[in-house]
Amino acid sequence: MTTAEYLAERRRIIDRVLEENLPAAETQPTSIHEAMRYAVLGGGKRIRPILAIAAAEACGADYEPLLKYFAALELIHTYSLVHDDLPALDNDDYRRGRKTTHVVFGEALAILTGDALLTEAFSWLSRPTGDPGRQLRAIVEVATAIDSTGMIGGQVADLEGSGAAGFSPPAGGLKAAAPLERLEFIHRNKTGKLLTASVILGGLLGNATDAQLDALRRFGRAIGLAFQIVDDLLDQEQTSEQLGKTAGKDAAQGKLTYPGLIGTAAARTRVDELLAEASENAAIIGGPVNYLAPIGRYVCERRS
Amino acid sequence: MTTAEYLAERRRIIDRVLEENLPAAETQPTSIHEAMRYAVLGGGKRIRPILAIAAAEACGADYEPLLKYFAALELIHTYSLVHDDLPALDNDDYRRGRKTTHVVFGEALAILTGDALLTEAFSWLSRPTGDPGRQLRAIVEVATAIDSTGMIGGQVADLEGSGAAGFSPPAGGLKAAAPLERLEFIHRNKTGKLLTASVILGGLLGNATDAQLDALRRFGRAIGLAFQIVDDLLDQEQTSEQLGKTAGKDAAQGKLTYPGLIGTAAARTRVDELLAEASENAAIIGGPVNYLAPIGRYVCERRS
Repeated sequence: MTTAEYLAERRRIIDRVLEENLPAAETQPTSIHEAMRYAVLGGGKRIRPILAIAAAEACGADYEPLLKYFAALELIHTYSLVHDDLPALDNDDYRRGRKTTHVVFGEALAILTGDALLTEAFSWLSRPTGDPGRQLRAIVEVATAIDSTGMIGGQVADLEGSGAAGFSPPAGGLKAAAPLERLEFIHRNKTGKLLTASVILGGLLGNATDAQLDALRRFGRAIGLAFQIVDDLLDQEQTSEQLGKTAGKDAAQGKLTYPGLIGTAAARTRVDELLAEASENAAIIGGPVNYLAPIGRYVCERRS
Repeated sequence: MTTAEYLAERRRIIDRVLEENLPAAETQPTSIHEAMRYAVLGGGKRIRPILAIAAAEACGADYEPLLKYFAALELIHTYSLVHDDLPALDNDDYRRGRKTTHVVFGEALAILTGDALLTEAFSWLSRPTGDPGRQLRAIVEVATAIDSTGMIGGQVADLEGSGAAGFSPPAGGLKAAAPLERLEFIHRNKTGKLLTASVILGGLLGNATDAQLDALRRFGRAIGLAFQIVDDLLDQEQTSEQLGKTAGKDAAQGKLTYPGLIGTAAARTRVDELLAEASENAAIIGGPVNYLAPIGRYVCERRS
């Protein structure tokens, strides 16, 4: 199977799991369930669940019974997008080529939809499976990846830099740090930690050994940072139509970016180094079916 | 120990656990950690963690090692208040006698603070304790109590009725249901389910038998509905100063309330019936130290 075929097939599987497990649109109160389904089922690369599947497969596990846990990662990713797009934050009207949730359903419902997706994710993650001890470790891993020192912390640091409307940070804070240090903090936290937690979730539920978990963590860290640098490069190079979301916003909002700070060529070199590091660690994991390195390459070479 | 003494002492214990376990205000990025601490440490009755303690004690458990899990309930309650108070939702400037989080820190940070508190709660709830299987059951219990068919669903149904700014519900939905049925849906979900999950959490981590868990669930349901009817009565009778939050908002926003629908006297009678039901079930649980019924009475007789 080519990488493109693998990604397309796994993505279809995740789309089906999301479609089947999200509350039906007819569930009362219907407005929030329509909004949850709109936000989640509107496309997306599903890269986090696919990374979890790939990690579990590389560790030799049958991923089929684990799909709902892995799909929860997409609920978390979508919740973060729904809230980040709100007028008080990034104020974005388009996402994945469609109107954002608050544009369609109003701000109040968009806030509650994000809340509901985050809650639903933990509900899915805590449904009993084989080994409750490993499962609890996995939940801690995911929760700390997206807490105020993880994904949310990265978003806060990003907003501190951008002077977004409605954001009034106190004096001091990360603003005082050197730009590259600040940017690395933002990227590692805003995107990197959840991507890392995704492969760790796959490993923990997929019976990875400790050595495999260590390699998965290093793989995740490298891919996580590479992913965000590529995002910066795309925001600068691509049109809104190509991205399915507003392009050029980083520069417009005065946000720190890798190409902005170290130049486009150096940013591309950094992506290549990170990809090499990721591939090395993917090889350590071994496994009968191991698509981790190809997915890493896809992440680094994507055009949207 | 009198009920007042019990409540005051347990409340001090919970305040200490929250104070010690929330990330320090100096943690990067500092703005969100200041906001999280502001929102949580600004007072509050801590009734949910206290109910969990009382349930665990009634089942004969040592509650000391369980305090962080129980304190997580207060993080969840606070997250719901921070988001409900936002301009797009209830638009409230005062809470617990102080300015609301978005008034002090701005809307963007208030949204992210609510997100961070919810995430932190699941992080605390999933830290390893004695029995991972029972703990997973407890997490599912809490998550489903506050999901889009629980607490968030109640808030959505409440907003559908109030015509809050920024809320554009689709046609049909709960709006079509009879007022008393709608109101019961709102109350059971918006407040009742988390209160019920609080005593169940105490029971599950406190080694309750199945019979005790059943009684705790019935106790929680009765107290949960009584709590919200009392809230409606207080909103109508008390001043903002007495409540520490804006009074008379239900009527101003045209919200459904128990006294509004069935009259003040009938609402009070319903509270008395629910209290009797709760006390009956508290007695079934037995236990060496059982403050569940007295807490129920306190909830029903409180003046703020």
